[in-house]
Amino acid sequence: MSSGNTYMVKSRIWICTEEGTFLGEGRIELLKQIEKFGSISKAAKEMKMSYKKAWELVNSMNNQSSEQIVTGKIGGKDGGGSVLSQKGKNMIEKYSELNKKTIEFLKNEIDKISWE
Amino acid sequence: MSSGNTYMVKSRIWICTEEGTFLGEGRIELLKQIEKFGSISKAAKEMKMSYKKAWELVNSMNNQSSEQIVTGKIGGKDGGGSVLSQKGKNMIEKYSELNKKTIEFLKNEIDKISWE
Repeated sequence: MSSGNTYMVKSRIWICTEEGTFLGEGRIELLKQIEKFGSISKAAKEMKMSYKKAWELVNSMNNQSSEQIVTGKIGGKDGGGSVLSQKGKNMIEKYSELNKKTIEFLKNEIDKISWE
Repeated sequence: MSSGNTYMVKSRIWICTEEGTFLGEGRIELLKQIEKFGSISKAAKEMKMSYKKAWELVNSMNNQSSEQIVTGKIGGKDGGGSVLSQKGKNMIEKYSELNKKTIEFLKNEIDKISWE
């Protein structure tokens, strides 16, 4: 038994629709990697995720959104690839803001709790 | 693509110390089952968890707390067993309150976000 422990709080949030999970930490990370690499397969590789899994996640996000989040880039020097739409960029930003606010909220709340 | 989706939010919280996780949804559920059955092994069975795993979780919680959270009951008709201390009961209550507050906070925050 130890005394005088300082308790901290960790959290994870998910944005869902009736169809299931829409955004979570893994999906947001995947979107960031797609933005970085301009490619679902490179993003999947970076995240040690199968291309099939990454494609399913992108498809799930696109299906739950009024606008495409990841779109195909046709042709060009590298023969295509994928880009994050403006909507996708907004999603990352909004999720990150909500996450940050939640962390601040929890930090504040946990300081009010007496665990003893 | 669907339009007019209603976004909901889910969250999970963990209380941690420098030693790692102290409380999370699984640990809280284990404490509730120990309280119900008065036995770590029965609680573990109910949760389809090995006795070893349950014992390790209880040990981890006890080690991170200034007072025992689960204590042994010596002798009696059933030959012992385990009980949740008052401290353990308080922990369940505080974790649940924090969880409920977080859900309310997130519900309120998500309504303010325009995802379009």
